[in-house]
Amino acid sequence: MIKAGIIGSTGYAGQELVRLLLGHKEVEIAWYGSRTYEDQKFASVFGNFTKLVEDVCQADDLEKLASEVDVIFTATPQGYLAGVLNEFILKNAKVIDLSADYRIKDVATYEKWYGIEHKSPELIKEAVYGLCEINREDIKKARLIANPGCYPTCSTLSIAPLAVRGWIDMSTLIIDAKSGTSGAGRGAKVQNLYCEVNENIKAYAVSTHRHTPEIEEQLSYLSGEVVPLNFTPHLVPMNRGILVTAYATVKGKHSAEELKQAYYDDYKEEYFVRVLDGTTPPETRWVEGSNFTDINIQYDSRTNRVIMMGAMDNITKGAAGQAVQNMNLLFGFDEKEGLQLVPMVP
Amino acid sequence: MIKAGIIGSTGYAGQELVRLLLGHKEVEIAWYGSRTYEDQKFASVFGNFTKLVEDVCQADDLEKLASEVDVIFTATPQGYLAGVLNEFILKNAKVIDLSADYRIKDVATYEKWYGIEHKSPELIKEAVYGLCEINREDIKKARLIANPGCYPTCSTLSIAPLAVRGWIDMSTLIIDAKSGTSGAGRGAKVQNLYCEVNENIKAYAVSTHRHTPEIEEQLSYLSGEVVPLNFTPHLVPMNRGILVTAYATVKGKHSAEELKQAYYDDYKEEYFVRVLDGTTPPETRWVEGSNFTDINIQYDSRTNRVIMMGAMDNITKGAAGQAVQNMNLLFGFDEKEGLQLVPMVP
Amino acid sequence: MIKAGIIGSTGYAGQELVRLLLGHKEVEIAWYGSRTYEDQKFASVFGNFTKLVEDVCQADDLEKLASEVDVIFTATPQGYLAGVLNEFILKNAKVIDLSADYRIKDVATYEKWYGIEHKSPELIKEAVYGLCEINREDIKKARLIANPGCYPTCSTLSIAPLAVRGWIDMSTLIIDAKSGTSGAGRGAKVQNLYCEVNENIKAYAVSTHRHTPEIEEQLSYLSGEVVPLNFTPHLVPMNRGILVTAYATVKGKHSAEELKQAYYDDYKEEYFVRVLDGTTPPETRWVEGSNFTDINIQYDSRTNRVIMMGAMDNITKGAAGQAVQNMNLLFGFDEKEGLQLVPMVP
Amino acid sequence: MIKAGIIGSTGYAGQELVRLLLGHKEVEIAWYGSRTYEDQKFASVFGNFTKLVEDVCQADDLEKLASEVDVIFTATPQGYLAGVLNEFILKNAKVIDLSADYRIKDVATYEKWYGIEHKSPELIKEAVYGLCEINREDIKKARLIANPGCYPTCSTLSIAPLAVRGWIDMSTLIIDAKSGTSGAGRGAKVQNLYCEVNENIKAYAVSTHRHTPEIEEQLSYLSGEVVPLNFTPHLVPMNRGILVTAYATVKGKHSAEELKQAYYDDYKEEYFVRVLDGTTPPETRWVEGSNFTDINIQYDSRTNRVIMMGAMDNITKGAAGQAVQNMNLLFGFDEKEGLQLVPMVP
Repeated sequence: MIKAGIIGSTGYAGQELVRLLLGHKEVEIAWYGSRTYEDQKFASVFGNFTKLVEDVCQADDLEKLASEVDVIFTATPQGYLAGVLNEFILKNAKVIDLSADYRIKDVATYEKWYGIEHKSPELIKEAVYGLCEINREDIKKARLIANPGCYPTCSTLSIAPLAVRGWIDMSTLIIDAKSGTSGAGRGAKVQNLYCEVNENIKAYAVSTHRHTPEIEEQLSYLSGEVVPLNFTPHLVPMNRGILVTAYATVKGKHSAEELKQAYYDDYKEEYFVRVLDGTTPPETRWVEGSNFTDINIQYDSRTNRVIMMGAMDNITKGAAGQAVQNMNLLFGFDEKEGLQLVPMVP
Repeated sequence: MIKAGIIGSTGYAGQELVRLLLGHKEVEIAWYGSRTYEDQKFASVFGNFTKLVEDVCQADDLEKLASEVDVIFTATPQGYLAGVLNEFILKNAKVIDLSADYRIKDVATYEKWYGIEHKSPELIKEAVYGLCEINREDIKKARLIANPGCYPTCSTLSIAPLAVRGWIDMSTLIIDAKSGTSGAGRGAKVQNLYCEVNENIKAYAVSTHRHTPEIEEQLSYLSGEVVPLNFTPHLVPMNRGILVTAYATVKGKHSAEELKQAYYDDYKEEYFVRVLDGTTPPETRWVEGSNFTDINIQYDSRTNRVIMMGAMDNITKGAAGQAVQNMNLLFGFDEKEGLQLVPMVP
Repeated sequence: MIKAGIIGSTGYAGQELVRLLLGHKEVEIAWYGSRTYEDQKFASVFGNFTKLVEDVCQADDLEKLASEVDVIFTATPQGYLAGVLNEFILKNAKVIDLSADYRIKDVATYEKWYGIEHKSPELIKEAVYGLCEINREDIKKARLIANPGCYPTCSTLSIAPLAVRGWIDMSTLIIDAKSGTSGAGRGAKVQNLYCEVNENIKAYAVSTHRHTPEIEEQLSYLSGEVVPLNFTPHLVPMNRGILVTAYATVKGKHSAEELKQAYYDDYKEEYFVRVLDGTTPPETRWVEGSNFTDINIQYDSRTNRVIMMGAMDNITKGAAGQAVQNMNLLFGFDEKEGLQLVPMVP
Repeated sequence: MIKAGIIGSTGYAGQELVRLLLGHKEVEIAWYGSRTYEDQKFASVFGNFTKLVEDVCQADDLEKLASEVDVIFTATPQGYLAGVLNEFILKNAKVIDLSADYRIKDVATYEKWYGIEHKSPELIKEAVYGLCEINREDIKKARLIANPGCYPTCSTLSIAPLAVRGWIDMSTLIIDAKSGTSGAGRGAKVQNLYCEVNENIKAYAVSTHRHTPEIEEQLSYLSGEVVPLNFTPHLVPMNRGILVTAYATVKGKHSAEELKQAYYDDYKEEYFVRVLDGTTPPETRWVEGSNFTDINIQYDSRTNRVIMMGAMDNITKGAAGQAVQNMNLLFGFDEKEGLQLVPMVP
């Protein structure tokens, strides 16, 4: 039984971590961090935990926390962890960071897209990008995990098999993504009010979304090419879920079956990736509340393009679920422990 | 390890049973019954079960099923089970009926409100009304469980402590209820289309809803009085959840604290009932996907009325969850087995 | 052609006033007041007005405004208008106040329920409660209109015919109301975020909602009795719409037909009230975007209660639409001018 | 004052026609056609029309109708009109067809994508494609209007200025579209039930959607090139609205400003097209209930692609609104008559 601390436990990803860890056999939550709700009962903020969690929220003191727990999850604003993380903390606890601070290897790229100075660039190299299906072995040996962004997780998993094989022209890659509103966080902003989001769809951060360089970097590792791409996220009136629809031109001659087989082959051992049969399109509802990513592709012979589609729960596999999966790898637990969640419909 | 069969597994309650039983340590699902989707893969109907369920849907053959399994769940249209149930089946398997066929003790009342002739009235007496918190001991000894309706479960639990004590004037009782749309079932009806339900609220079946006599019967057992009441359900644009707001005049002198204490006392040992503190109103989101019922009351001294509020997931505690809870009681499993679900937010 | 100024034009009710007045033949909007968005283009805040409104938002200067326009609409926080209104303003312009400042005749009641000191109690007496169907003649002669609250409008219209006739026992009256989320305003509050409201229903302000004394006062005028009642509002995941479900015991002998006829009789000349035939329940979607209130009642002989139901668009008839209707009465325009809006479905 | 008949008046587009025509000064609706609801009051099907429409639904008899009215709107299933239209009808009334029967000039293409034999191919040539902003002059002289599909209208308007100028490489064009659920029609299908659509997003008809050849044909007229493109529609949990996000590589050297100026230039006289300033993305809520199409583009210098975005109400400009606009052109009315609808927010 290990002990875990959560910094930022009262955001949507933070409280999802609580939901998942309460069902995990090997972990006990020892610290519910929240600046906003310090000294208030955690269950008074998230009523779903009534009678399940009696703890009170605590301020964030990372060094103290590192002495008391085995793993620290940080679901915090960009720049926070980079400003406080140090060798003492890393020596005493594993750190799984749900923010973007250690995801991008090139500091200049990070600073340009995030508009923040990085305060601990010396730690970036050590951090392992925690996309479990791709970097499993490196994760097992890490001290610091950069838990991937939601869009990058879904995009990378949806595109990887063809990128790795060099079967698509990476310079033609376009990712059109759609996300539920929990991805926008729990901050009190007019633009995220019910009446502003409901009965509406819009693109946002067109050509400027911060997940763009993260996706490009991961795909460049897989394809061996520099990949400038178009990434357009859209806000959808629903709570949870991300859908990626990606387009690329097929390089060389590859039948629809051959393209599909690449997915079956690469993911046949992956519990959390479900390659759908036939022309069944992924739907976010089929993965809601679970750690699954559902993927299917369709080859269009008229245009010689392949449409790659992935559906995922942005808070689970896109944040807290993958963080737990990373923890399982770090501590040698069964990778599925605490994550065998059946998606909930309707 | 026991075996379970589900008749009507492709309705909303049926597939929720599958979700719950997949996480239950003592049960294996041996029969996915569905007339509509016979011979089709269950997971092709409900994509959430992709890679989790490989079975194919089968027609309903209750006698055959009874020989093969230990427990049969029927999530079927009104009148179906009453037409086919017999002694052979009951001798070979426990039956938990999610329809209304055996809920109402008086056949005439059933036939009047449901407009159906009851085909096996001789079995009604034997059936135990499976509201676990109320009839726990009788359930343990039963062969046939009448799994309660969603509105009756939420209403009865919200009102019981004051009804039992005779502290409210039962003749003043009014129940105004609100339900998510999954309660309307999965039939292809224009009135349940997305564009007919979304951005709308309405009352329906005013003064004529079939759950009315069921609630009246249960409350009459608790209060010792015949209770004609007003029950008005409303359709809410959301998937899951039932909220009951009940009103009654307080009899005699009882402080707000005394009224509330009745709830704390009656439910202090009940895992699945959460009495909320202070003036926190129950919200359906805090119980979504779980077997909890959240309850709070408020005494209004200006009118000498008490407002009793309960929130529940209509598909879980209101149908499949309670059915599993009944199964646990029938077979001597831990009552919470398979049901320690943390509600999912948002 | 008269000129109108709107203070608080960037709230939901304020911008609805703009929508309605743009379609009004006799009015020109001369002042788009907004403290929050001062100096910004109105259409940059509400993109629906792109190319339709070129004006820039201005701060609130009521005296200046009164010199320049014929009518002032105030869609402002409680207490604002009471703090600045004076004889100069009232001499120069008609004032239609969408806040609650002048709705309640008894200052002590206002101050108790709103928790605010009333700064101009001397003007309360002069103000006319602008429920057009009830106070039409008084409105025509007024200088200051207290535009009714959304819940009070829908409640009063739904109950009035029976209250006026003394056919219901007012001491048994219970109002269970449901509102879309626009009623909560456009302030940046966590509780009104999309992910906090969506897939949820809850009661709020149980026994303490500020519209309670307003409803009680209006019903006491109609019935000639002091009416302490229970009013319980609920928050529904939809943008617009209010549904009232009210319950009362019938006094004396009145058939269902007789009760219903009272509604037909009282509203036969009222364009904006639609009494529905048969048992058709009012639905908020059928009135969305319009100034209609749809009403139906049902008598339950089992309990001798009548269930009175009303559906209304909370922003239109519940706020801006009724304000325009009041303006039409004040200036002698056709009462329907600018308000012959066909409800928009779906 | 002309007379109009509507065949298919009880679908979503049909009843929107009613909403729009009720506010049109020059038209009277003489025929509410509906097979499903024949002999029932139209307002009993769509309660929004209570007290506004007293008519009863009638069966479809196109020849009789043609003798009685000046214009016939057909909002009917694919293939219906092609099967019954004849010279007699066209001589007696203008016909505006909201189905796809006469939109595609090549019969083989129509029959391949729709899987229906075309019964009156001789009339296809005469039909004018009713995209008003593009074909205004031809429309004025027509007898038979093929009212464009929702996706094609929004796509074509969003792409036209660059397609006409040859500034984008048409072979790189990808259209990723998102639609509210009313686009799926009012048929009683499980897949369109509230609980199947809510809290979900999915692509559908990937590479096979019937609007694909219609878009390709229109863009080929504008660009002078054959344009095989990818079109992927998605189903969004909202009632109304279409959003198009289109991607293409820029040909030659064109600055972001130059690209944008093309839109300002082409649409400066078009009332119903609003080119948004700066980087403001189109949102479906800003056009809801109106005949507007909001458009903006963004040039991404990193990839040399332009992202073209358009938002439209699928039932209004995407169906009934454009049909009325076509009628206005056909009869010489002001093109905006009946269509100066301010979008309704929230």
